[in-house]
Amino acid sequence: MVALRSDPPYPVVRLSPRAEARAIRHGFPWVYAGELVMDRRTASLAPGALAVLEDAERRPMGVVTVNPASRILCRVLDNDPGAVIDEDWIAVRLARALTLRQSLFDAPFYRLVHAEADGLPGVVIDRMGDLAVIQPNAAWAENHLPAIANALVRVTGVTRIVKNGSGRTRALEGLTEETHMVRGEAPDGPVPVPMNGAIYLADVLGGQKTGLFYDQRFNHALASRLAAGGRVLDVFCHVGGFGLAALAGGAREALLVDSSAAALALAEQGAERMGRRVTTRRGDAFAVMEDLAAAGEQFDLVVCDPPAFAPSKAALDAGLRAYERVARLAAPLVREGGILVLCSCSHAADLARFRAACARGIGRAGRRGPVIHTGFAGPDHPILPHLTEQGYLKALFFRL
Amino acid sequence: MVALRSDPPYPVVRLSPRAEARAIRHGFPWVYAGELVMDRRTASLAPGALAVLEDAERRPMGVVTVNPASRILCRVLDNDPGAVIDEDWIAVRLARALTLRQSLFDAPFYRLVHAEADGLPGVVIDRMGDLAVIQPNAAWAENHLPAIANALVRVTGVTRIVKNGSGRTRALEGLTEETHMVRGEAPDGPVPVPMNGAIYLADVLGGQKTGLFYDQRFNHALASRLAAGGRVLDVFCHVGGFGLAALAGGAREALLVDSSAAALALAEQGAERMGRRVTTRRGDAFAVMEDLAAAGEQFDLVVCDPPAFAPSKAALDAGLRAYERVARLAAPLVREGGILVLCSCSHAADLARFRAACARGIGRAGRRGPVIHTGFAGPDHPILPHLTEQGYLKALFFRL
Repeated sequence: MVALRSDPPYPVVRLSPRAEARAIRHGFPWVYAGELVMDRRTASLAPGALAVLEDAERRPMGVVTVNPASRILCRVLDNDPGAVIDEDWIAVRLARALTLRQSLFDAPFYRLVHAEADGLPGVVIDRMGDLAVIQPNAAWAENHLPAIANALVRVTGVTRIVKNGSGRTRALEGLTEETHMVRGEAPDGPVPVPMNGAIYLADVLGGQKTGLFYDQRFNHALASRLAAGGRVLDVFCHVGGFGLAALAGGAREALLVDSSAAALALAEQGAERMGRRVTTRRGDAFAVMEDLAAAGEQFDLVVCDPPAFAPSKAALDAGLRAYERVARLAAPLVREGGILVLCSCSHAADLARFRAACARGIGRAGRRGPVIHTGFAGPDHPILPHLTEQGYLKALFFRL
Repeated sequence: MVALRSDPPYPVVRLSPRAEARAIRHGFPWVYAGELVMDRRTASLAPGALAVLEDAERRPMGVVTVNPASRILCRVLDNDPGAVIDEDWIAVRLARALTLRQSLFDAPFYRLVHAEADGLPGVVIDRMGDLAVIQPNAAWAENHLPAIANALVRVTGVTRIVKNGSGRTRALEGLTEETHMVRGEAPDGPVPVPMNGAIYLADVLGGQKTGLFYDQRFNHALASRLAAGGRVLDVFCHVGGFGLAALAGGAREALLVDSSAAALALAEQGAERMGRRVTTRRGDAFAVMEDLAAAGEQFDLVVCDPPAFAPSKAALDAGLRAYERVARLAAPLVREGGILVLCSCSHAADLARFRAACARGIGRAGRRGPVIHTGFAGPDHPILPHLTEQGYLKALFFRL
């Protein structure tokens, strides 16, 4: 055990005897509500306060951030109880995250920080060349945003930084929604992002999440390969993730479906920059798939990458039924021998349940076929072995 | 239901009322021992006999192959009860399998047939250019080997075919071990196989399984990327799967460890053909890892791809302990910030159990780190959704 230095910079919080000290010692990064001794001082800590965590026997365990407003009461920042959480500390974590991404990718377009697994709890940073989008999804990160931004400029050399304060996670921490530039000028339009030979356009100030999803990169790459020469349908396409990758891989044509006109417009502009053209169809994905089936349309590759239908355990049954319905409506649109890619970004629907729902839906459509690939989020989305729920993204490639 | 034609070519076998007819209708490919009505005629069927399967109400369900000597009593060959299983039938299945592989890979080096999921139950075929290795791991395939070989030549144009009759699976079907050429001349040495920029040498007549493992291709590719400029340790290297891929990706040096002198010699020859050199160390992998740790050796990338430590449920606990031990001995050999790739090809150890064993081992070595990638066998190893146990291969990339 590292000795606590004589003048600790942070107040002390203490695990209650019933808490799992062992798990935290082994790398579990959270203390849940109810697992701390709630004396008056601890209860009065401001959201995002830093503290030294002690076990029930008063042995120091590390530096944590405390948020009495959150179910995740503490997040472990450093197992060294003497650590000082400042710009330099953040810079070391960022540099370590950067080294991994530089070894993975040729160009500076990636998720640079994936929260707990990159040692920066609750912090998500996507990099798009000289621009970065920070999602400070935990109160400590909100409080330390200037230090994070400074460190980010120092370590990566980015010149423009967006704070993106949208999304469900911030509400759980008691944080408000707000998205604005924190460094540099706002981009004068969507930001071009090259990936798998395609060009995507990210609306970093007004789009979903950070404006682009890097997590499907490897799954896009495989779909791109399988799409060569074929006709592709990308349902729930957002800014064209699978569809544009398919075009880059040599697909003959691509039909993109989404309910958002803004997302479809970005997909069309991306295709234009690639010197290609896509057909888009705005509407309810379920209705569009029914229309396409009624018209007898078939495709060599069909991809459905819907929003999270099962975002919570309570929504699991309804979510699995929705995934089954997607599969049932999509399968008839795949030509004999073609590929159906079904994705889920629901934490609650684990791989086995999601696969079973997909297989049921495909079966109800009178089709069947093996899984040729099971993919997760790419390697710039690391997960702690203790937090496998972070492995939210699943992509199943069926050959029908 | 397809009508049974008036003159069925095959005898009839009937599901017992307690069997799961519904699962088979939904694509489950097997009937287990005890699930058939065992009249005298059924009991006297020769291993590998073809039959028409009926449900308990005498409705025909398809053509199956029966092996009274196997726990897998029937394997469904065709859901059409009127199907005739001959060379043409096999050729159609092979052509369908080939189309998928041609869309996946630029060069004709891949697993062409992965058994049930490719519609050819118990049949594994690896292709290496103009040579193919067939593993007829079910009695019907053994009986139909000439037809399979004929169809294979017709569909793919291969000129040399090896029958590989090694392995545990054949014994379960009551088949003997034997490996020999069934078409063309025996190759006058190991067969070169290009993959991920590396060149592997496969001993198709004397090596393990078909002489080469295509299943790790995508995991090799990611390791290759991560190895650039680094020092690599490949433990349980076989013919150099990860180690040679790492060299192809620009690794500075690679140390390969295996207990088989023959495998190490093939790895060395592969490296030579690539114009590179590897260091090899023959011995017990556990002892070698202990020696390396005692010598203070560290690597940027360490890979452990051991044989199946948990080949059966009975061996699960011991197997998981062995995986934990591998992780515990390998983790200290990874430099700070480096990558540890831990693989399992055990059916019985599922992903969650395997990951937990690895995390435990890493933790016992005083290290920790997130999983950046979870990979399975490549897309030329499809799996039926009903047979997820076929998803035997798991590769976890930890960043320490």
